[in-house]
Amino acid sequence: MTLRDLIVHKRDGGALSAAEWEFVARGVAHDLFPDYQVAALLMACMLRGMTAAETVALTDAMLGSGKSLDLSHLDCGRVDKHSTGGVGDKVSLVLAPLVAACGVAVPMVSGRGLGHTGGTLDKLESIPGFNTRLSLADAVRQVERIGCVIIGQTDEIAPADRKMYALRDATGTVPAMPLIAASIMSKKLAEGLTGLVLDVKTGLGAFLPTIEEELALASQMVALGGHHGCPVVALLSNMDFPLGRECGNANEVAESVEALRGGGPPDLRELTLRLGAEMLVLGGAAPDVASATAKLEQALSSGAALEKFRAMVRAQGGDEGVCDAPARVLAQPRITVPYVATRDGIVQRVNALAVGRGITALGGGREAMDDRIDHSVGFTMSAIPGDRVRAGDVLAEIHAADDAGAGAGRAALDEAIAIDDTPVVLPPLVSHRVTSTGVERLA
Amino acid sequence: MTLRDLIVHKRDGGALSAAEWEFVARGVAHDLFPDYQVAALLMACMLRGMTAAETVALTDAMLGSGKSLDLSHLDCGRVDKHSTGGVGDKVSLVLAPLVAACGVAVPMVSGRGLGHTGGTLDKLESIPGFNTRLSLADAVRQVERIGCVIIGQTDEIAPADRKMYALRDATGTVPAMPLIAASIMSKKLAEGLTGLVLDVKTGLGAFLPTIEEELALASQMVALGGHHGCPVVALLSNMDFPLGRECGNANEVAESVEALRGGGPPDLRELTLRLGAEMLVLGGAAPDVASATAKLEQALSSGAALEKFRAMVRAQGGDEGVCDAPARVLAQPRITVPYVATRDGIVQRVNALAVGRGITALGGGREAMDDRIDHSVGFTMSAIPGDRVRAGDVLAEIHAADDAGAGAGRAALDEAIAIDDTPVVLPPLVSHRVTSTGVERLA
Repeated sequence: MTLRDLIVHKRDGGALSAAEWEFVARGVAHDLFPDYQVAALLMACMLRGMTAAETVALTDAMLGSGKSLDLSHLDCGRVDKHSTGGVGDKVSLVLAPLVAACGVAVPMVSGRGLGHTGGTLDKLESIPGFNTRLSLADAVRQVERIGCVIIGQTDEIAPADRKMYALRDATGTVPAMPLIAASIMSKKLAEGLTGLVLDVKTGLGAFLPTIEEELALASQMVALGGHHGCPVVALLSNMDFPLGRECGNANEVAESVEALRGGGPPDLRELTLRLGAEMLVLGGAAPDVASATAKLEQALSSGAALEKFRAMVRAQGGDEGVCDAPARVLAQPRITVPYVATRDGIVQRVNALAVGRGITALGGGREAMDDRIDHSVGFTMSAIPGDRVRAGDVLAEIHAADDAGAGAGRAALDEAIAIDDTPVVLPPLVSHRVTSTGVERLA
Repeated sequence: MTLRDLIVHKRDGGALSAAEWEFVARGVAHDLFPDYQVAALLMACMLRGMTAAETVALTDAMLGSGKSLDLSHLDCGRVDKHSTGGVGDKVSLVLAPLVAACGVAVPMVSGRGLGHTGGTLDKLESIPGFNTRLSLADAVRQVERIGCVIIGQTDEIAPADRKMYALRDATGTVPAMPLIAASIMSKKLAEGLTGLVLDVKTGLGAFLPTIEEELALASQMVALGGHHGCPVVALLSNMDFPLGRECGNANEVAESVEALRGGGPPDLRELTLRLGAEMLVLGGAAPDVASATAKLEQALSSGAALEKFRAMVRAQGGDEGVCDAPARVLAQPRITVPYVATRDGIVQRVNALAVGRGITALGGGREAMDDRIDHSVGFTMSAIPGDRVRAGDVLAEIHAADDAGAGAGRAALDEAIAIDDTPVVLPPLVSHRVTSTGVERLA
């Protein structure tokens, strides 16, 4: 068996066996193949597709290329949440401590921002001292002690996936659904979970173009989880416009603290509760969504969630003062300028994709994986679609490092925001729920 | 413009502009792109196809990535022949001096063997001292002086093609017709030709699977030549079984000398004359194929062709004694064993593909471009399809370096040769002729 033979087989529309995918993953993990051969295979997979059996086999093989978190000695459920990536999406920062406060362990391996989507690790690293590079052994100890941890993908977790993903970004092979599903699930299954909740974004800021494809991706991941004995529930949530008001990094942490105190914008709170309730039910901490929601609300209002966040920040070396006075601890922008409406009317859209690109233009996001980011920049959005505004009303604040940045931010908002006189009907925040029994339309 | 954008565009079925192909070729020639991005682009081209305009643009761009032979000061035509690769195909060795002896310059940039097909450079290098690595300036001087030269692709000629071809072999992207056509034509157009004759192989030993695809490839190359002011004539010739009797390297040189003396096997002579006649007509040295053929036959019988070969061997540093006593000059095999028929009957096939693989198994061919080869090994075939044989008749001689090699050669012939009692109709040696006016069926 040579990789060249497997490339040719896939190129000609064939399906690779489980043994062949294992050969691929092991070779990639151990750097046995030149990158150009792996790139050719990925493009062939992208254009020829992969069978369901191949996706299972690739997931298995990538999972098996590394180590897993062993949390089977815990007497509680272990449930994580994964999002396909949005703008202003700071849900993980709130959800991990909140769910842990309700008795379900959350061992979260998270990612960095790329393109227009932000990353949980980048946001957490705005907290001075916060360390996302824990070993698996340290992550296990932290989950044992406080119930949650948020770390980056280490060399230990699915190394074959890590290397293939790096190639996919540069070779135009990211949007291949079986590759996406296998990549996500190989990492998530390495967390030793008893359940997984997926937040699949839909709309203007989503990375798949149609709801049909998003449902297909959700179904594939639900099936992959089931195949590995890990029940998966996926919610499809709207990402036409940013989630919450703060978009960036440090300012999203501040908004997360607000939400952990029981406040924060209603859409952030609602999505956090919807996802968290599924997690509590999957984790065996609540019999149904209604009682799970009540439990979560209680953890927010009692301060238990914020205290869990404080424990996590402290355990990971961060300045826990962020829980008390975020503005004193977090990096503040050099310049903040208002962005105002130029006419009266109704806000038609606040395009999440354009806002996300604006964050990158400000220096708060990445074009390439090795770009450095400025945690202090971003936007505070004060208008959402459907709002009636007057010329001169502030629609957003632009937080920038300098005047050039502010100009780039302004240009992005010019593209993102449209106002005219047509009434707007907001899309539902959560539209579909996908489980092993099928797709349920919620709104 | 980034290469990643172009990969995505091609991946999604788009066509790249001439400026975009130039960006690709220049970047590849100057090593500006990582190989994995080029590999992904090649696989996308393979699976999405390329328009005729893209193939012209890629050919132009690869041609423009290097230098060309400037022979415009010569007062004779400059015509080359290119073959898509066969087994036992030593036509170039005979044809270049033969056509030069008839007054048409032949500046031939040739290739090495790979897989089951042999290479002209490898064969010539069986002649002690023969140097195929001339600079373009030295090649021009040799053509001025003696009318022909056979060299390898240097760093100067279409470097973008050279680098892309190396990747294609490893990434399963060789059999993409636009890439094949652009690769061949970018090299050939760099020779500063006034005409080109193509020998497109068909049958079991051809690298394209069907005659339709071979005709399409021929038509593409004819069109590319026309687009660059270089008239092209393509002949489709049969490669079900090896051409001539000798298959290998040194032994093919010996057979070429025999042919240059006016002897040699009839199929080798016929194909050489058919291709040579087209070259003389394109080069303005004969008004039609019939008079061109007579002129070529005269150059063979007069010894002019052999003397031109002698001059070329001498000019390129080789031992010209090969013209007088090939067996004394060329490396001889350590072992020669007969391969005999095991039953009476009619030879059904002598599969060129299996024979070619057998040469590689003997050590006389390459699996990868950096393999070293043994010039002394090969086969002497004495039976061709349609021959009536008796059990015990010698069908071939196996020339090997050792007993293991002889065993591998025997296994290859077991696979290649089939005998039973069915009468055999030989395919025509040349079946089609393709020019800018269309496809002509010859037999």
